[in-house]
Amino acid sequence: MRSIILATAALALAYPASAQQQQQQVPGFVQASAPPAEAPPVAPIPAAQQRTIDRLQAAALESDHAYEIVESLVSEVGPRLAGSEAEARARDWAVGMLRANGFTNVRIEPFTLPYWDATREEAHIVSPGIERPMVAAALGGSPSTPEGGLTAEIVRFADMAALEAAPNSAVAGRIVFIDEHMSRAQDGSGYGVAVRKRGRCAPVAQAKGAAACLIRAVGTDTHRFAHQGGSSRQAQGASLPAMSISPADADVLANLIQRGTVRVRLDIRADIRENAQSGNVIAEIRGRERPDEIVLLAAHLDSWDMGQGAIDDGAGVAIVSAAARLIRDLPRRPRRTIRILLAGAEENGVHGGAAYGQAHANETHVVALESDFGAGRVWRFDTRFAESAAPYTRAFQRALSPLGVLPGNNQADGGADVNAIREAGTPVVDLSQDGTDYFNYHHTPDDTLYAIDPAALRQNVAAWATFVYLAADTDWTFRGAPAAQ
Amino acid sequence: MRSIILATAALALAYPASAQQQQQQVPGFVQASAPPAEAPPVAPIPAAQQRTIDRLQAAALESDHAYEIVESLVSEVGPRLAGSEAEARARDWAVGMLRANGFTNVRIEPFTLPYWDATREEAHIVSPGIERPMVAAALGGSPSTPEGGLTAEIVRFADMAALEAAPNSAVAGRIVFIDEHMSRAQDGSGYGVAVRKRGRCAPVAQAKGAAACLIRAVGTDTHRFAHQGGSSRQAQGASLPAMSISPADADVLANLIQRGTVRVRLDIRADIRENAQSGNVIAEIRGRERPDEIVLLAAHLDSWDMGQGAIDDGAGVAIVSAAARLIRDLPRRPRRTIRILLAGAEENGVHGGAAYGQAHANETHVVALESDFGAGRVWRFDTRFAESAAPYTRAFQRALSPLGVLPGNNQADGGADVNAIREAGTPVVDLSQDGTDYFNYHHTPDDTLYAIDPAALRQNVAAWATFVYLAADTDWTFRGAPAAQ
Repeated sequence: MRSIILATAALALAYPASAQQQQQQVPGFVQASAPPAEAPPVAPIPAAQQRTIDRLQAAALESDHAYEIVESLVSEVGPRLAGSEAEARARDWAVGMLRANGFTNVRIEPFTLPYWDATREEAHIVSPGIERPMVAAALGGSPSTPEGGLTAEIVRFADMAALEAAPNSAVAGRIVFIDEHMSRAQDGSGYGVAVRKRGRCAPVAQAKGAAACLIRAVGTDTHRFAHQGGSSRQAQGASLPAMSISPADADVLANLIQRGTVRVRLDIRADIRENAQSGNVIAEIRGRERPDEIVLLAAHLDSWDMGQGAIDDGAGVAIVSAAARLIRDLPRRPRRTIRILLAGAEENGVHGGAAYGQAHANETHVVALESDFGAGRVWRFDTRFAESAAPYTRAFQRALSPLGVLPGNNQADGGADVNAIREAGTPVVDLSQDGTDYFNYHHTPDDTLYAIDPAALRQNVAAWATFVYLAADTDWTFRGAPAAQ
Repeated sequence: MRSIILATAALALAYPASAQQQQQQVPGFVQASAPPAEAPPVAPIPAAQQRTIDRLQAAALESDHAYEIVESLVSEVGPRLAGSEAEARARDWAVGMLRANGFTNVRIEPFTLPYWDATREEAHIVSPGIERPMVAAALGGSPSTPEGGLTAEIVRFADMAALEAAPNSAVAGRIVFIDEHMSRAQDGSGYGVAVRKRGRCAPVAQAKGAAACLIRAVGTDTHRFAHQGGSSRQAQGASLPAMSISPADADVLANLIQRGTVRVRLDIRADIRENAQSGNVIAEIRGRERPDEIVLLAAHLDSWDMGQGAIDDGAGVAIVSAAARLIRDLPRRPRRTIRILLAGAEENGVHGGAAYGQAHANETHVVALESDFGAGRVWRFDTRFAESAAPYTRAFQRALSPLGVLPGNNQADGGADVNAIREAGTPVVDLSQDGTDYFNYHHTPDDTLYAIDPAALRQNVAAWATFVYLAADTDWTFRGAPAAQ
């Protein structure tokens, strides 16, 4: 009995008022002088809609449609670097996949971007001992090294702060090696800390006269992979070659430096071009009552090229497409338009998201969200809504609760490809995925289907179908001002 | 109390007779007409020796000396392909390490071998879709492909038996792809089954007119690594190019073949030479009473070159060296000679073990054992002794029991580098390591220090010190005939 009592108490905390109570409070929601003990208002979900939600969730949890989509993308296209021929093929694949799933207005919206690809990315320990290779990846945007490579002594710093504090004399002419580790966290917050070295090593080291930058790969695993990723070289005006190396190689460097001088050769051949072709792929379920009000579901089509692009972001492509397909299969379309944005060229600068924001600035986006954090189960629901929308937030929380999704905060990010429209005022949400293991695989050759748990993928589709259906089949608005239309 | 009673009962099962009972039965051991309920005889361990064993085990379990040895080898030498300059440097490192640990007669015994190294080993899916790389490794002994690579349609077989059953017409001109998986087992027995495809694909496929061989890597992990390893091409007279590919790449091939024709390009550049230099490194603790009786401890110095040679076989080098060092630190040397053999060129044909067997055929090896199965804890003690030596086996079992080592069988293998002297009649034992995870790392870039659990390494040293000390400080013999001298 004890456990049952506790469980009931926990439910009471999460949902202080019954659905019936809530319905009595609607409309109005904000009770200015309500006593503190009063339950906060929850927007009601009519019984017919709740039945639809239940059906969507049940259908999602027993379908491997999302897995089939990502398997198709991985098998038939594979890695697809931004601006490459493979990315163009991914767009064709996406158009075919979206049409086959019965969406309308399927189209490609092209844009151009500066292209970067490393056709060679090698690093060797030259001395002490016999020359030997490290497992290395050029950082996105890195220039080529001189023909034959760039050989210099390395100087190790435990973190970026140590480099920043170092005198120029300790750095000049050397290859800076930032040996900072990354912390594992469910919400992925270790990434924001660790990734600074990827973006800032080159400009800071160059200002001190360094020859190149080398970083311990930004990741939480101990496998022999060098995580890829963009540097902010271009934005910062730096032009130093920059690479990441695997944890085991970073350890060897650290061990050897304790014994004496270590010389390393970096060899990068970068293919850099302006005005490469990319594009966003768009598809819709046209709204039956308010077609100009758009619920935007995003993921990105491009990937880094050492992996197969399964969790970054084939999983996101699959989750949003499979969730939308479940809604398309309902007896009638939701009131608002559901739009899928499969963005191009996210990894090297969010070019697709920016292009979408420009092209669609004048449309009414009710809410936007992106799936781009792997394939872990959704564990939390975050919003970035006006305070007045709190009752809707609680209604979404309640609808998502059977899937094990916890209430979150009101500081949602939305995702890189919806940044532009978020900054233009569009409310966003995060169906936050469990990222405990995400940075084991992120931007490595190990980004394969093995990194996807099919059960977690099904739960993602259920959460997405729930949120998207409810957001699209109501007239709820989440902005501070009255609804735009 | 209950748990104590159970524990006592368990001990009674493992050791049916007390030490005192056993001592009454010595000498004699074999009680021809003993009733079935009688306890089997156990050779007694005198109290002073038992105290030494206890001290050795305690010292081993609190020392990271073995870890320091393997860290030194990995950091200062790294990968060391048989016959390479790096392997020569590993011999120099070994001589220095063995001398620093106070062993005597430290020396290199050179030999030559046929050299093989892949200076290029690439594989691509050519069609369908955009050409893309697979993660691949050339199999040891593979010839080069023609300039520009070898491109052909692949034909998939679920296992070697399916290839063997196929008509020549299904194979001729194609690249055979053996997609067989490997089973995980504590004793590593899945390897013997799975590795057949590595050795037999090329000769069988060539006999049927195939263009090349491709295998799903022999391993139990799902990471994006292609396990290296020798093929038996040379022994079988085959000359087909042969490669292994990672599990995720094998899956993509399998998925694409279900959809239609798949073409693949293999590109191997092999450096093949006769009479490359290698050598065994030998060191001793000279026996104080019977110096001509040798207890042989083996491990191998060479490694495949994609990894760092940490668990294969840096760990073995460290375990045997650290165990012998503990014995060397005792107040007096054991009766018999303890000899360390750090063999060269194991991976590409056990050339070092064969050279040792030839050079030392006339010496008296009391017993031999090798550490070459990673760094997992010792979980079982196996012997290959005459039946008359069973009481010694039981004494060893008892001495090893505090370390959690289980009694095993009398079909020990000894290890590849002691095969030659085993076949010449030397008794061998296996301090069998837990290999549950070994084939996740084996022959991959992931063979790094991260694959070593320092606590398991300490337990290995304790088990080795126990066995070696006891074997060397007694006059026990394990051969069928009376002792050779």
